[in-house]
Amino acid sequence: MNEMLSQGMQPHCSWCNPTEEETRYLLLQGASWRVYLADKQDDIGRCILVLNRHAGSLSDLDIAEWSELKMIIDRLEAAVNRAFGATMCNWSCLMNDFYKAACPQPHLHLHLRPRYRSPVTVGLRKFRDRRFGHHYKNHRPNRLTAVERDEVFRRFKNVL
Amino acid sequence: MNEMLSQGMQPHCSWCNPTEEETRYLLLQGASWRVYLADKQDDIGRCILVLNRHAGSLSDLDIAEWSELKMIIDRLEAAVNRAFGATMCNWSCLMNDFYKAACPQPHLHLHLRPRYRSPVTVGLRKFRDRRFGHHYKNHRPNRLTAVERDEVFRRFKNVL
Repeated sequence: MNEMLSQGMQPHCSWCNPTEEETRYLLLQGASWRVYLADKQDDIGRCILVLNRHAGSLSDLDIAEWSELKMIIDRLEAAVNRAFGATMCNWSCLMNDFYKAACPQPHLHLHLRPRYRSPVTVGLRKFRDRRFGHHYKNHRPNRLTAVERDEVFRRFKNVL
Repeated sequence: MNEMLSQGMQPHCSWCNPTEEETRYLLLQGASWRVYLADKQDDIGRCILVLNRHAGSLSDLDIAEWSELKMIIDRLEAAVNRAFGATMCNWSCLMNDFYKAACPQPHLHLHLRPRYRSPVTVGLRKFRDRRFGHHYKNHRPNRLTAVERDEVFRRFKNVL
């Protein structure tokens, strides 16, 4: 724990302490950022870009972090098109959940939701993006089985 | 129009051809980006960052555009805190509406929605962010009168 604190890591921060399950779905590891396939696959290929250090807002980023973020965005936009035929990407940087706490300690992360004009096939099933051309909907359930999620992870990683 | 096309501008693109109303609420003009106060003030101080040239995705941005974007984000995050006491910012880059068309020609833009733990006062009225700590809600109506919007614009511009 002392080592964590000396690196600015927060002992109670969920992104400073990823679970084993999250780590299993690590797609990319950079000097400043890492990318996980999201556990909730409501949009197929949805993933989360997490800053390696504990910082709370986009304006906290330094030049190296900002530059690497662009390289990762470029790779991910190309990859979701190549692996799944995604038409375009919805990006967001929200962090609202952290602000439910009285003393929020937000950890910067971004969400990528690939969006699809045509259905994407995973395993034997076709997944339609029924709200394509519209804002993504919150609070939808995960659509993939564990086996399908593993296939998405492999196909994603293969083109990164 | 020939001059527009030579600069890569699209004659039928709403962001290549901003309305007089939009131009009246121009907060910032940069070499690569410009920022407007959004017409729909569902979140107080909501604004839109528009790329000056016509390009469709974050991966289309060049280094100069990506660098200026960071400088503008830094200025805006500081400004909404200083002008309105915003607690934090929700950022998004979506562009779904463009994809309702059969041949989409998206024009890159980002949304900034300031979020508030405490009410913000505009004119004589207090505005509460009732969903603070939660995802912003879509399709909410504008909350400000024309006079209140002008006040928000002036206060915003004064601290930029």
